[in-house]
Amino acid sequence: MALIVKKFGGSSVANSERILNVARIVLESYKEGHSVVVVVSAQGDTTDELIEKAREINTKPSKREMDVLLSAGEQISMALLAMAIEKEGYPVISLTGYQAGIMTDSNYGSARIKSIDTERIFRELDKKNIVIVAGFQGWNRYEDITTLGRGGSDTTAVALAAALKADLCEIYTDVDGIYTADPKIVPDAAKLDDISYDEMLELASLGANVLHTRSVEIAKKYNVNLVVRSSFNNSPGTIIKEVGKVEKMLVRGVAKDDNVARIAVIGVEDKPGVAFKLFSLLAKENISVDLIIQSIGRNGKTDISFIISKENLDKTLEVLNSNIDVIGAEEIRHSDKYSKVSIVGAGMVNNPGVAATMFEALFDADVNIHMITTSEIKISVLVDVKDSVRAVNAIHEKFRLAELGSGGK
Amino acid sequence: MALIVKKFGGSSVANSERILNVARIVLESYKEGHSVVVVVSAQGDTTDELIEKAREINTKPSKREMDVLLSAGEQISMALLAMAIEKEGYPVISLTGYQAGIMTDSNYGSARIKSIDTERIFRELDKKNIVIVAGFQGWNRYEDITTLGRGGSDTTAVALAAALKADLCEIYTDVDGIYTADPKIVPDAAKLDDISYDEMLELASLGANVLHTRSVEIAKKYNVNLVVRSSFNNSPGTIIKEVGKVEKMLVRGVAKDDNVARIAVIGVEDKPGVAFKLFSLLAKENISVDLIIQSIGRNGKTDISFIISKENLDKTLEVLNSNIDVIGAEEIRHSDKYSKVSIVGAGMVNNPGVAATMFEALFDADVNIHMITTSEIKISVLVDVKDSVRAVNAIHEKFRLAELGSGGK
Repeated sequence: MALIVKKFGGSSVANSERILNVARIVLESYKEGHSVVVVVSAQGDTTDELIEKAREINTKPSKREMDVLLSAGEQISMALLAMAIEKEGYPVISLTGYQAGIMTDSNYGSARIKSIDTERIFRELDKKNIVIVAGFQGWNRYEDITTLGRGGSDTTAVALAAALKADLCEIYTDVDGIYTADPKIVPDAAKLDDISYDEMLELASLGANVLHTRSVEIAKKYNVNLVVRSSFNNSPGTIIKEVGKVEKMLVRGVAKDDNVARIAVIGVEDKPGVAFKLFSLLAKENISVDLIIQSIGRNGKTDISFIISKENLDKTLEVLNSNIDVIGAEEIRHSDKYSKVSIVGAGMVNNPGVAATMFEALFDADVNIHMITTSEIKISVLVDVKDSVRAVNAIHEKFRLAELGSGGK
Repeated sequence: MALIVKKFGGSSVANSERILNVARIVLESYKEGHSVVVVVSAQGDTTDELIEKAREINTKPSKREMDVLLSAGEQISMALLAMAIEKEGYPVISLTGYQAGIMTDSNYGSARIKSIDTERIFRELDKKNIVIVAGFQGWNRYEDITTLGRGGSDTTAVALAAALKADLCEIYTDVDGIYTADPKIVPDAAKLDDISYDEMLELASLGANVLHTRSVEIAKKYNVNLVVRSSFNNSPGTIIKEVGKVEKMLVRGVAKDDNVARIAVIGVEDKPGVAFKLFSLLAKENISVDLIIQSIGRNGKTDISFIISKENLDKTLEVLNSNIDVIGAEEIRHSDKYSKVSIVGAGMVNNPGVAATMFEALFDADVNIHMITTSEIKISVLVDVKDSVRAVNAIHEKFRLAELGSGGK
C-alpha cells in the first residue's frame, strides 16, 4: 500500500461543509489501505482576517509576531479537519509544524525548510493514524514559529512527500489541473494531462497561480510524483513529472503576469561593474529582477531597464534613489502599466521558429512589444497591460493550444 | 526593581482599541523599570466562535483536537498584543505555552500544570524583553497541546508568578476588585481592599467569577502576592494575601450560585459503605459534590441528597441510574430550581452567632431554606432560585457589608 501526501488549500477548507468533503476525500484513500498524510492551509479568509486584525494595531509589526499570528490559522483548520475525520470514526491526529518536525531557517515570513524530522509522523502512521499537518509553518533553532510565505502549504506538502519518501503528493485545489492558459482569460484553454517540472516551474513563476515555484523546485530536486487536481470533482488532474511526453506541439502553455513594474535606471556610465553594483543592491534586499535590458550606450552613458514584482516597487525605488550616487545614475523612472506574457514548452529550445510565431501572433493582434527575454523553455514579452488578454488569446490560438487537452477538459 | 506578572482576560483584549490600552498598562510598569511578564486570554468571543466552528463539524470532537483548536485563540491575542507594544517602540516577544515551558499532565481540556521550565522566559527578560505568554495552554509529555479548562489563564498567571518568584501577580479584569456581593445584584455592594486566600477560595468556588479557584489555591500554596484590578481604570483593586486584616466585621462577602442542581438518592440502605460507594462513583467521573445531607433513617432506609454543578447533571444522572443496583437505591430524583447562597469570612469560625444572624435575615425576607452546610469560613444555604436575589440583599444588609468598602468603591 502507498504512502500519500494530500494538500488542501484555503478554499478547500473554507467552511464546515467543505471540511467534511475533504474528510471524505482523505478517507477514500485511507479505506483503500494507504497511509495518508494531509497538509492543510488556513481556512479561506482566515489569513486575511488575521492580517486585518494586525493592521488595526500596528501597520509595521515584526515578522516574528506576524508569523505567530498567522500560524494560528492552520492550527484552527487542522483541528477542524481532524474533528471531521473523527466524526466518521477513523483514527486521526493533527500536528503543528513543530510537532511534525519541520525545521526552517529564521527568515520570518518567508522561511525555508532546512530539515524535516519524520520521527513523529512515522510514529503516528504506525499507529494507523491519519496524520494532518499544518501547512505554511515551521520552527527555527530558537524554538520560534516561522512561516514559509506565499504558497507555503504547497511547499510543506512537497517537502513532506520528499522527506517521507511518499509514493505520491496530491495538491488539491479549486481548479481541475494545469491548463494551457488561464480559462478565465482564454475560454478554450485545455487541461494538460501532464507537464514537466521545468515547464511547471516557468508557468508557476509566471502567475499561473496553481502551484508555488518553491514547491515545484523541491519536487524536481527530490523527484516527487506530483499531481494537481480539484477537491470539488473527481477529475484526474495534471501529473507533474520528470520529463513531459514528447508532444507534436512545442508550446505547452501561455500565461500573463500583470503583477509587474518596470524600472528604468537612466544615464549610468557605460563601463564594467555598473550592473553588478545595481543588482547586488537589490539582491541584498531580496528583490528578484527579470527581463534586464541594457540599451546601446551613447556618449559613454547607457540605460538599464528591468522588471520587478509590483509589491517590491516601493522598496526598489527606496533602495535605488538612496543609492543613486553609488550607482552613478541620472534618474530612476518607473511604470506599472505593463504585463508580462510568456509561452512555455520544453520543446522550444531547439526550434527558433517558436519565437517568430509568437511575435507574428502579437503583430496580427496589434500588440506592441516593449521588452523580450528568452530562456531554454520560455519566451517572455512585456506588453501594455491593456493588451495582455488579447495577447494571450492570440498566442493560444496561433499555437492551437486548445488541441493539447485530452478531451476531458 | 520588581518582577511583575500581569494577566489580562478576554474582555480586556476584545478588540484593537482594548489591546492598545493593555499595551499602555504594560508599558507603564515596564517604563518604571520593572520586568514584566504578561499572560493573555483569547480575545472576547474567539473561544465561542471556535467552539461553534467545531460544533458545526462534530458535536463530540476529541478533547485533544479541541485543545489544538482553542489554543489558537491565545496565540492570536498574544501576537496582537506584542504588535501593540512594538508599535510603541519597546522590545517584546510572545510565547506559546510550550515556548514558555508550561508542562501539564495529559488531561486534555482540563489539564493541570505539572512544572514550568522558566529558562526561556528568564532569557527573554534578561534581554529586556517584555514577555507575553499565552494563557490557558500547556504542553504534555507526548509533545501535544493541552488546555487548562475554565479560568485557565488565571492559573497560568499565578503559576508563572510562583515559578518565576515574581513580586506581584496582577489579574486585570472588567471589575474593580472583589466586592462584598455582586454589584449587579446588590447595588450598594462594597469593594474590599483586601481578602485572605481562604476567603477568596470560598468566594471563587461560589460563583464570584472574578478569579478561578485553582489559581487561588496555587497563590495560597506558593504565597503569591495577588491583586485583582480593572483594566479600564486606575482603581487600586483588591489584594489577596495570607491573612486578611482583622476587621470589626466577621463576614466579608455574600454570593449566590444559580448553577447548581440537587440530586436526591432515595431509599438506600442505612448502613456503612453506601455513601462511599455513591461518591466514589461520582469521583471517578470527576464530578464534585457539595452540601451532602443524609436524612435520618427509617425502616433501615435513608435518603442522601447533594448538590452538583448544572453542567454535570446529565453525566451524574447517567452514572447513578446505570449503577442504581450497585448503590441499592430505589430512585434518583433531581431538580435544578435552586440557588446556593453563601457568606464567607475568616472571622466566623469562632462566632456561632453569625449563622443565626444569616438565618434571621432569610426569615425576615421570607426565604425558605432547603439545605445548610457550614465550614470554618463559610455558611451556605440552598434556597429557591426565585428567592436568591432577595436572599443575597437581605444578608448583605443584615451584616452591613456596604460599610466594608474603603470609600473608593
